[in-house]
Amino acid sequence: MRPQIVLFGDSITEQSFRSGGWGAALADTYSRKADIVNRGFGGYNTRWALFLLHHLFPLRLLLLQPYFLEQMMQRFWEELVQGSMCQLMNTRRIFGEWFNILRLLQECCSTMLIVLITPPPVDEEGRKEYARALYGEKAMKLPERTNETAGLYAEKCVELARELDLPSINLWSKMQEMDGWQKKFLRDGLHLTEDGNAVVYQEVVRVFSETWLPASKMPYDFPHHSEIDPENPGKAFQQQCLGV
Amino acid sequence: MRPQIVLFGDSITEQSFRSGGWGAALADTYSRKADIVNRGFGGYNTRWALFLLHHLFPLRLLLLQPYFLEQMMQRFWEELVQGSMCQLMNTRRIFGEWFNILRLLQECCSTMLIVLITPPPVDEEGRKEYARALYGEKAMKLPERTNETAGLYAEKCVELARELDLPSINLWSKMQEMDGWQKKFLRDGLHLTEDGNAVVYQEVVRVFSETWLPASKMPYDFPHHSEIDPENPGKAFQQQCLGV
Repeated sequence: MRPQIVLFGDSITEQSFRSGGWGAALADTYSRKADIVNRGFGGYNTRWALFLLHHLFPLRLLLLQPYFLEQMMQRFWEELVQGSMCQLMNTRRIFGEWFNILRLLQECCSTMLIVLITPPPVDEEGRKEYARALYGEKAMKLPERTNETAGLYAEKCVELARELDLPSINLWSKMQEMDGWQKKFLRDGLHLTEDGNAVVYQEVVRVFSETWLPASKMPYDFPHHSEIDPENPGKAFQQQCLGV
Repeated sequence: MRPQIVLFGDSITEQSFRSGGWGAALADTYSRKADIVNRGFGGYNTRWALFLLHHLFPLRLLLLQPYFLEQMMQRFWEELVQGSMCQLMNTRRIFGEWFNILRLLQECCSTMLIVLITPPPVDEEGRKEYARALYGEKAMKLPERTNETAGLYAEKCVELARELDLPSINLWSKMQEMDGWQKKFLRDGLHLTEDGNAVVYQEVVRVFSETWLPASKMPYDFPHHSEIDPENPGKAFQQQCLGV
């Protein structure tokens, strides 16, 4: 089985295979080495994302400690459905519950690396322009997100990563280091341009290289063609086949 | 489980997630609807590809008629390893054996669609230029593929698709309909430019729309955000969850 890199997020993840997208670039870099699985859900928030968790990682649960994890997920799931846990403003608790589970999975499966990525900054002016282009005069009445709130969210994300000893990427800070980040990295004040995608890609590759494995050091899935003897191709495959 | 579209081929497939690549474009088009799984193996030929078949589709085998298919694959595998079946020049027989197995899989699993894609044409002059740039004077001594041979291979591929009642895409013919195809579609006489990738992408989307499902008619994996009630998000997820 080829290793999987699961991208779990919102529209910025869902759109990551567009031209110049960070998901596609990862898929190319890890070609023949890992599968990049896109699990981006546009427009979802953390609370909604929790409804998917149970479905997105079922195989891993079953492979590890089925009874304990199933019980735990079941309890978590019931709490969620009954609404006893979720309060929209209580992001700390949602984050906490969620990452405790991911931490547990990480402990059970030492080869699973979890990397947290914050949202990028918000260009409020660009966001307003986009809304005006789309909705005209009505745009003013729409509630809009702010860069400050995105910054608080990013801070919380980095803080939780630290608590859980997970690597994180602070896109919110990183992108604002560059003059003109508003138009260079964001195409509608919120979603990424090709340059913005390149920042995410470079940061993910950097974190993977530092904490896990750079693509260049990962083995190919099946022998590289230069290792196959045209007179006796079976030989190069034999070791892999015997191992399966 | 999200449906999978498996791209099985050589370097043109392996490189299909590069910028402007046809694999990445498919992944974007089928975003939230199907996973595009890249199983391209650069430099491999049909004979070598046969060594992988048993490993690439094991789950489907196990899910269908395990004993019969396992036995059959085992026999096929042993024949291969013993070399009693493979003769490099006998592409007809290799194609035949291989597609008989795929046909069998298709019959067992009616939702599996197999599409055969021929190689693109070869720009012999472009190929020579590339070799000269890479190897200098030595280049002349290297054996090189011809457009005529690629055409015979493409013809065989289309013929077999017809025999097996499978859809096929004849890139060899399609690309040569355009004046200047040599430089427009091929970057080294053999591998695809962005324009060449666009042809493959468009043809695959066309065939999928005609024979299977256009992405626009496939359901989203989990509800679209517009269908989720922020006051009661669980409701939209409930049906899907109960179905699992």
